[in-house]
Amino acid sequence: MSADSTTNTPECLKNVRIVLVEPLYGGNVGAVCRAMANMGFSDLALVAPRDLDIDAARMMACHSLDILESRSEFPTLAEAVADCGIVVGTSARGGLYRRHSKSPRDWAMKIIEGASTGKAAILFGREDDGLSNEETAICTHIIRIPTDTRNTSLNVAQAALLCCYELFVACETYEPPKEKSPEAPSYLREKMFAIWRQLMLDVGFAKEDKVDHMMFGLRRILSRGPLSVDDVKIMMGIARQSIWAAKRDGRSPTPLPDGDGD
Amino acid sequence: MSADSTTNTPECLKNVRIVLVEPLYGGNVGAVCRAMANMGFSDLALVAPRDLDIDAARMMACHSLDILESRSEFPTLAEAVADCGIVVGTSARGGLYRRHSKSPRDWAMKIIEGASTGKAAILFGREDDGLSNEETAICTHIIRIPTDTRNTSLNVAQAALLCCYELFVACETYEPPKEKSPEAPSYLREKMFAIWRQLMLDVGFAKEDKVDHMMFGLRRILSRGPLSVDDVKIMMGIARQSIWAAKRDGRSPTPLPDGDGD
Repeated sequence: MSADSTTNTPECLKNVRIVLVEPLYGGNVGAVCRAMANMGFSDLALVAPRDLDIDAARMMACHSLDILESRSEFPTLAEAVADCGIVVGTSARGGLYRRHSKSPRDWAMKIIEGASTGKAAILFGREDDGLSNEETAICTHIIRIPTDTRNTSLNVAQAALLCCYELFVACETYEPPKEKSPEAPSYLREKMFAIWRQLMLDVGFAKEDKVDHMMFGLRRILSRGPLSVDDVKIMMGIARQSIWAAKRDGRSPTPLPDGDGD
Repeated sequence: MSADSTTNTPECLKNVRIVLVEPLYGGNVGAVCRAMANMGFSDLALVAPRDLDIDAARMMACHSLDILESRSEFPTLAEAVADCGIVVGTSARGGLYRRHSKSPRDWAMKIIEGASTGKAAILFGREDDGLSNEETAICTHIIRIPTDTRNTSLNVAQAALLCCYELFVACETYEPPKEKSPEAPSYLREKMFAIWRQLMLDVGFAKEDKVDHMMFGLRRILSRGPLSVDDVKIMMGIARQSIWAAKRDGRSPTPLPDGDGD
């Protein structure tokens, strides 16, 4: 949906997709639509919805039926965010893979900046089980909503409202940059990570049982700043060349002398 | 509920009551309970609930059943907020009686300050009809949540989450003052306004058909800053004395020469 000049719908939100992973309750999906409409969003994607009660969704959507009806659906999360540079996960949990999480207010300007040159996605996990570690790995940023520590789990539609609201409010003070290289889309980043995973194995940096743990570390490192298409190509080039060099003379790889390099 | 030293529940929220006026859907009431628990609130009051589906409320309340079960219920709004100094209305509408509205972020610190010396209430209107002008008149402050102008009406539980969240976040930076006189409670303010209404009629400042409109102006003026118990007593004293003086010699009141003093 293009921005309407007679309204206050921020131009900078039109590239932001709200993604619900395996939603269970139609009422929640409808309530997300209403929250999106309240805050000027229009792009809703569902990943493998679970037998949704679409009548309940319609009832909760109220005046935002257009968002509900024009939603897209994908069999996998990777497909839902394939064209997105910034991919933001939301999580009520802490822990190793979520250590770099910030509040929605802290990330708002970063997301808007990314959405000024390409698509961005904000992911909300299952009502009963959130996002998996593997789904979190696809994300470039993690949002953790500040809550009372005794009750950290928000209703999915309320969490969506809160994130949309913080972006809507942040748009007021956002000024687009003069020029900027586009963030690498998710499919390209994932291709790069697959090659780096292979490199880790081929050079003996990590064994098969440890390599995924190491990959989380690499993903975190490469999500700390912008990662452009050119950046990704360079990183892929390094990895490919290293794999080739390691295999050149048929020697088996020599393990590093000390630790995993963590 | 007293604050628990092992959690991050802000001390400054324990005096803030969430008030739902004539709620219609149990699911919404339950979702409000969950939002309150997420943000460290515990005091829920319902005004004349309309045939609530309490099972739907329980389902949406999830881990916040204690808030639902310990709710208080009142036949009128005046009774629900009688002991509250700060009374905040929420509204998606603009218009004459809501002209002094601000965003939840703008009012957050003011509400927390008020709640540091007495009770405060935040009101949410009917799902189908919001708050009436008369209910808005009881309020000392009005919150209007920033939204897309094409979709200004939020789900009541989402609106509650957003207001609770802004207070929760603001608590982090709040420092209680050394000493402060308590805000006058609502019942006392309403008593004062009733006497001033009588004064306006008795001295001929306004006729019966215009007096309520004039009262909205007076309410707005007296809500611009703190109004302590002592302030209210002074204002009541002035009005009572003026009524007495106007009636002293049995003369009928002389209308002011020019306008209504607006």
